[in-house]
Amino acid sequence: MTAMSGSEGRRRPVTLKEVAARAGVSVSTVSLVANGKKNARIGDAARARVLAAIDELGYRPNALAKNLVHGESRFIGLVTDGIASTPFAGQVVHGAQDEAWSRGYMLLIANSEGNPEAEERAIAMLLEHKVHGILYSTWYHREVVPPAGLSETDTVLVNCFADGGPFAVVPDEVGGGLAAARMLIAAGHRRIAFINTTTESPAKQGRLAGYRHALAEAGIPEDPALIMEAESAQEGGYACVERVVASGATGVCCHNDRVAQGLYDGLKERGLRIPDDVSVVGFDNQEIIAAHLRPGLSTVALPHYELGVAGVRALLDGVPAGAADRLTIECPPVERGSVLTVTA
Amino acid sequence: MTAMSGSEGRRRPVTLKEVAARAGVSVSTVSLVANGKKNARIGDAARARVLAAIDELGYRPNALAKNLVHGESRFIGLVTDGIASTPFAGQVVHGAQDEAWSRGYMLLIANSEGNPEAEERAIAMLLEHKVHGILYSTWYHREVVPPAGLSETDTVLVNCFADGGPFAVVPDEVGGGLAAARMLIAAGHRRIAFINTTTESPAKQGRLAGYRHALAEAGIPEDPALIMEAESAQEGGYACVERVVASGATGVCCHNDRVAQGLYDGLKERGLRIPDDVSVVGFDNQEIIAAHLRPGLSTVALPHYELGVAGVRALLDGVPAGAADRLTIECPPVERGSVLTVTA
Repeated sequence: MTAMSGSEGRRRPVTLKEVAARAGVSVSTVSLVANGKKNARIGDAARARVLAAIDELGYRPNALAKNLVHGESRFIGLVTDGIASTPFAGQVVHGAQDEAWSRGYMLLIANSEGNPEAEERAIAMLLEHKVHGILYSTWYHREVVPPAGLSETDTVLVNCFADGGPFAVVPDEVGGGLAAARMLIAAGHRRIAFINTTTESPAKQGRLAGYRHALAEAGIPEDPALIMEAESAQEGGYACVERVVASGATGVCCHNDRVAQGLYDGLKERGLRIPDDVSVVGFDNQEIIAAHLRPGLSTVALPHYELGVAGVRALLDGVPAGAADRLTIECPPVERGSVLTVTA
Repeated sequence: MTAMSGSEGRRRPVTLKEVAARAGVSVSTVSLVANGKKNARIGDAARARVLAAIDELGYRPNALAKNLVHGESRFIGLVTDGIASTPFAGQVVHGAQDEAWSRGYMLLIANSEGNPEAEERAIAMLLEHKVHGILYSTWYHREVVPPAGLSETDTVLVNCFADGGPFAVVPDEVGGGLAAARMLIAAGHRRIAFINTTTESPAKQGRLAGYRHALAEAGIPEDPALIMEAESAQEGGYACVERVVASGATGVCCHNDRVAQGLYDGLKERGLRIPDDVSVVGFDNQEIIAAHLRPGLSTVALPHYELGVAGVRALLDGVPAGAADRLTIECPPVERGSVLTVTA
């Protein structure tokens, strides 16, 4: 077994001095080359020897020292609130990391798991590490009051927004609701129920607005009996089955995939088939649910990865042209097997 | 709207000089107090004035400079492979972060999402940041070949292990399988099926060994007809329904919660009730499934949070007493509503 916490078995880091000896130059020459100083007067041959020696010996430059020397850090802070409880936060991390790495920045991630004290501490630590800026993200789209510490650095809000607050990147809830309802309308459905959440949120308002827009553009009159509200979990969808059946809907837009899963269960218990008897569309594209229901659930994807990418871009490049206080990111439709095409 | 990437609207950081002026001491005195130098000859009154000024002005010490001055970094690296695709990786992050923060360390998280090039790059970046050590973690329990870069620093494997490799912290799969089968045996079941995965893994072998141990200790003879294998997803559980019914089992241990979900669907389609007709036990305690099936799924929890905590402890404190090459962490049972008590 390789030793873990002693020094035996662990490779000693290669020093600048060893690189200098191998390349036949001074330590300061190695330092200038390793730190990428463009203006240093070093001959091409010497530079090539240093780079070769760095490569052969496996020398690791000290990124912390480089940060200090350059007078700014190559860290971007990312505050998240739900990395342990949802795959959504992880997708924001993944997108932000990919974009940060491609720009030569390292992500410093601090998870608060929704605890305000942990959040305050996380932001203080990020500031002490002289981050270039902070992405403040939430696992579901909502309005926030940005913590005071964020005023000490550049900030972009990701999947959340604040009145008069920093620039925000958020999902296009209206466009997502539109895409969901259009999947059913394009398949010939005209009597389409909408199971919304009871929780006030941009998702609740936005997805309903998109549904209404889709009906209007198709010339389908709105029927209040088709719009219902339920807990945004499997239990909520299950509880709506009676109303869905009584409404005579042939298709249902669900607030999210969890609601759709509960609706599946309830419909099946009544002997109804999906999509033969009722077509169902979800929202979120939560893979573990949507891809594995029977039949696979047609849904609309939340763009968490893209939100992470867009957040880093806004931090490094500034507010995108044409964006005012926020940038909305598309929620694209994902077709599986839960929508039946109705022949008129 | 607060400016995001300009300097307007952003608070200028407080300088050492401002703290010194407020406290009526020299800049070097402030520096010594701010960096917690115990041996510096500074009077109690001056020290108190400096601390008060730091607090009043909101001065942030430079953690990067402190790292360099102290000659070692207060970073712990965490390499993960599935932060965007599973909640499991996030739970390891959460546990590792809580323990690291409580010990005055900051976590530097690098997600490879299973891409070997991203992983190599991640480890190089962590080494350049002079991390105190690295936790190398996988989202499911498996054997790994540790990347070469890990030999340059102290490493602990989390949720994975390597033959002759660094110290590892892993879930107790055998104990978990034992706990799962014991839930059914304690409720009076004697004819208990086991739907295992087809994928060779420590989970496959360990959980089956635990199931066998539970039968043996209860004096229940093993019946090969009760042990089946299936894809470790909803589709796999669904595909086993015929065999489960034909086996006459009154209870079923499933390789994971996803398999249990598929089994639920298949049993219900045949008009069978859970737990009245068949009791079901899962594994993983994947909340979005287990807590929301109808009925709620009794299962065994994977200890991802605890693995993260144990990994940081092993890195900072060394190999725990009594542990050889690895430490196993308990997988505790979680009772919900899917096990019927059978009266003899």
